[in-house]
Amino acid sequence: MPHIALDEHLPGIRAAMAFRPEAARPLNELVEVLLHNPDNTLSPGERELIATYVSSLNECHYCQTIHGAIAAAHLNDDYDLVKRVKADFQNADISSKLKSLLVIAAKVQRGGKNVKAEDVTAARLAGATDTEIHDTVLIAAAFCMYNRYVDGLATTQPIDEIPYRERGKQVARDGYVAVSKTYLPAEPIVR
Amino acid sequence: MPHIALDEHLPGIRAAMAFRPEAARPLNELVEVLLHNPDNTLSPGERELIATYVSSLNECHYCQTIHGAIAAAHLNDDYDLVKRVKADFQNADISSKLKSLLVIAAKVQRGGKNVKAEDVTAARLAGATDTEIHDTVLIAAAFCMYNRYVDGLATTQPIDEIPYRERGKQVARDGYVAVSKTYLPAEPIVR
Repeated sequence: MPHIALDEHLPGIRAAMAFRPEAARPLNELVEVLLHNPDNTLSPGERELIATYVSSLNECHYCQTIHGAIAAAHLNDDYDLVKRVKADFQNADISSKLKSLLVIAAKVQRGGKNVKAEDVTAARLAGATDTEIHDTVLIAAAFCMYNRYVDGLATTQPIDEIPYRERGKQVARDGYVAVSKTYLPAEPIVR
Repeated sequence: MPHIALDEHLPGIRAAMAFRPEAARPLNELVEVLLHNPDNTLSPGERELIATYVSSLNECHYCQTIHGAIAAAHLNDDYDLVKRVKADFQNADISSKLKSLLVIAAKVQRGGKNVKAEDVTAARLAGATDTEIHDTVLIAAAFCMYNRYVDGLATTQPIDEIPYRERGKQVARDGYVAVSKTYLPAEPIVR
């Protein structure tokens, strides 16, 4: 049961966002920029894999399942690849560049100071740009927020994977801001 | 030295935001809603103390110093109170409600699942509303992001406290979005 009076019909972060739409707006815009915005040299599938991996390190069931589903939707429905990245990304069928970025993401998850110059050098040698390294750090940091938000309020987190997969396809296609309009009020307050 | 090509003349998160203004916009709007927006039953000083305390638990020098300075600016320049809250909030001169919220914030910092029903019950008994509990969870979660962002990129974090105090007064007065306009481009991309 959620710790506060959330709509139990909405799963995970959607219940928290519906409770506080003023905060939901920047939270949705942030994840839109980081994961969905097409103007990025990391593909949406790669960025969703980083988000999924960090969410699995934080053991957030809702976030790792929905972002795993969005990742798969971007990656030809390859749910097995998502599972392999979570379990053992060094032996998954992903680029060496993405592996080097996942190393950085895992360090950010434990705390920002764990990222060392040699991790960044390794990512550059694997072909990562400064913007890709920046985005990896911020995606990993942001999911340390989203995961804590979802679990810290004890939101409802369904076990059945099918609804996540359906939602994942929608979000992969339309993005976070557009999909959030189905459950958030029209226009929150602060500018 | 920062891990990527950041402007070394900008301290902490400001260098990261100037590097990636598309992300800076929702990052500033989120902290504006959470900490500065006057439409909140927690005072700006109380909310800044939560942010400062979580940043000290994450050992982020830049964030705990600037948010400590903003907190003090909201609290009659009481820098000693800020130090006491960081060192031993249970014996600091703050309300029992704020103490119960700082207990929740500390648990979120370690991971969202650490927040238990009894922590929420204790906060309610001390007078906290559901919205105040929500905002505490999200502020604590958000500073687990901002702290990792600032440290994960190895941003420049000046030692001298005076510039933080000057900036703290500005932010306390004008807010995050207004102050960020001094170093961010006029209008970033994504809507």
